[in-house]
Amino acid sequence: MSRPGFLIRTAEIVSVGTELLLGQTVDTNAAFLSRELAELGISTYRHTVVGDNPERLEKAIREALEDNDLVIMTGGLGPTDDDLTAEIAASIMDAPLVKDAAIDQELNRRYPDRERYDFSRYPLLPQDARAFPNDNGTAPGSLSIFSWNGRQKAILLLPGPPAEMEPMFLNRVKESLAVYCPDRFIHRYVRLYGIGESRAESLVSDLLKDQTRVTLAPYASASEVVFRISQKLSDPHEDDLTEAMVQELIGRFGDHVFEVGARSLEGVLADLLR
Amino acid sequence: MSRPGFLIRTAEIVSVGTELLLGQTVDTNAAFLSRELAELGISTYRHTVVGDNPERLEKAIREALEDNDLVIMTGGLGPTDDDLTAEIAASIMDAPLVKDAAIDQELNRRYPDRERYDFSRYPLLPQDARAFPNDNGTAPGSLSIFSWNGRQKAILLLPGPPAEMEPMFLNRVKESLAVYCPDRFIHRYVRLYGIGESRAESLVSDLLKDQTRVTLAPYASASEVVFRISQKLSDPHEDDLTEAMVQELIGRFGDHVFEVGARSLEGVLADLLR
Repeated sequence: MSRPGFLIRTAEIVSVGTELLLGQTVDTNAAFLSRELAELGISTYRHTVVGDNPERLEKAIREALEDNDLVIMTGGLGPTDDDLTAEIAASIMDAPLVKDAAIDQELNRRYPDRERYDFSRYPLLPQDARAFPNDNGTAPGSLSIFSWNGRQKAILLLPGPPAEMEPMFLNRVKESLAVYCPDRFIHRYVRLYGIGESRAESLVSDLLKDQTRVTLAPYASASEVVFRISQKLSDPHEDDLTEAMVQELIGRFGDHVFEVGARSLEGVLADLLR
Repeated sequence: MSRPGFLIRTAEIVSVGTELLLGQTVDTNAAFLSRELAELGISTYRHTVVGDNPERLEKAIREALEDNDLVIMTGGLGPTDDDLTAEIAASIMDAPLVKDAAIDQELNRRYPDRERYDFSRYPLLPQDARAFPNDNGTAPGSLSIFSWNGRQKAILLLPGPPAEMEPMFLNRVKESLAVYCPDRFIHRYVRLYGIGESRAESLVSDLLKDQTRVTLAPYASASEVVFRISQKLSDPHEDDLTEAMVQELIGRFGDHVFEVGARSLEGVLADLLR
């Protein structure tokens, strides 16, 4: 994989939707994306939430581009007139909205009776954008790399609903972004319940001392102890060594492990209750 | 209650904390405050999250002041050197940080062994600010009304932890802000489970038709039907008529009512599991 000249080091996340400004919805996308960007070695400098208002939306995008390599926008990609994200982003990029044939075909295939819905705007993406189909909904995502005031910038458009955005990012977008990232990290989390921090640390003191290619870091909160396992990948062909460490921790902590991943105890419980 | 000349019509909420930008914490304060501001008749135009970085924090406050009457800041009021919110806000207001005697006394009373902790910064508030003691923690809140580039502006500083911020806002701050608000609304919510939207509406069709001083609006999502009860208060002495409507709905829907308030079904369940 050859490196492009353009590297993404900093990002701002702009969440779009009047329901967010009314407090009807909590913006969980910004936190999810910030964690994912950190894993790619990208620093998030700001989160911004704006409503479905063209002037303020345009201002937010311009300010975010001024200060960052990458602007990620979530929301405002729906079919109605108040969904302005793609249109305004395209106008700032000076890239007209054009129909993406593959996305159009995919929507036709999945919704043969699509004339019943207003799907006409979904396949319209900024010219030259890389398209990401939506496996859990209708609005596709897109990544544009473009020249802005003489500098290279990137805008990533993603749907607002977390159930669409999160799998799109993990399964389709992340590897496209990784190409532009200065470093690559793998971070994994092993979460423990029912054991104190000092006891947990004492059981892995040998692993904490002997850190070479894979590093282990403990965190603790009121309800859990978390071990973060990190590996910095120097080249794309380097082996993923984190799985061996995950298995080592599972072997040592047994039933105290309630999650290998990002979910808190509360999140695991909420998922169980669904 | 006499009206001040200065009215607050628009607000931006600036949440401060590197843990938010790393995605370790989801910002729920902005949604809570937006709902509360809507009840006061204040429009929230933007949410911004910045880290504990002096330059970016100052830039965020200045941009927010430029566009809005009120800037609410949550977080960054702790005792350590990376807690910069009060210091930077004070410098922008051109109001030195001075010790608030009442807050100082209160902290001394509650923590007689306070020399064990570093509480020295907590009583330092921007000069002329109105102080709000923290009933659930240590960092006080404060409201400053000041002149900025020839215009009146307000900055409200609040602690970051929701368990401190929310009761402080509801019990102490809200009535202080209300003095500056153009209109006053009461909004209340009655939430139903196990009944469909059309059935729920049919049971209150008479109330939906006959809306005079108290208005009733239905919402529905996948798991619940919500009725919002709203009353616009023309003067501060007007009676609160919403309670009668709440009781009317409870009488009609009985056990379908799982919450009178802001919590979703998921939130009620999570609280029950705690």
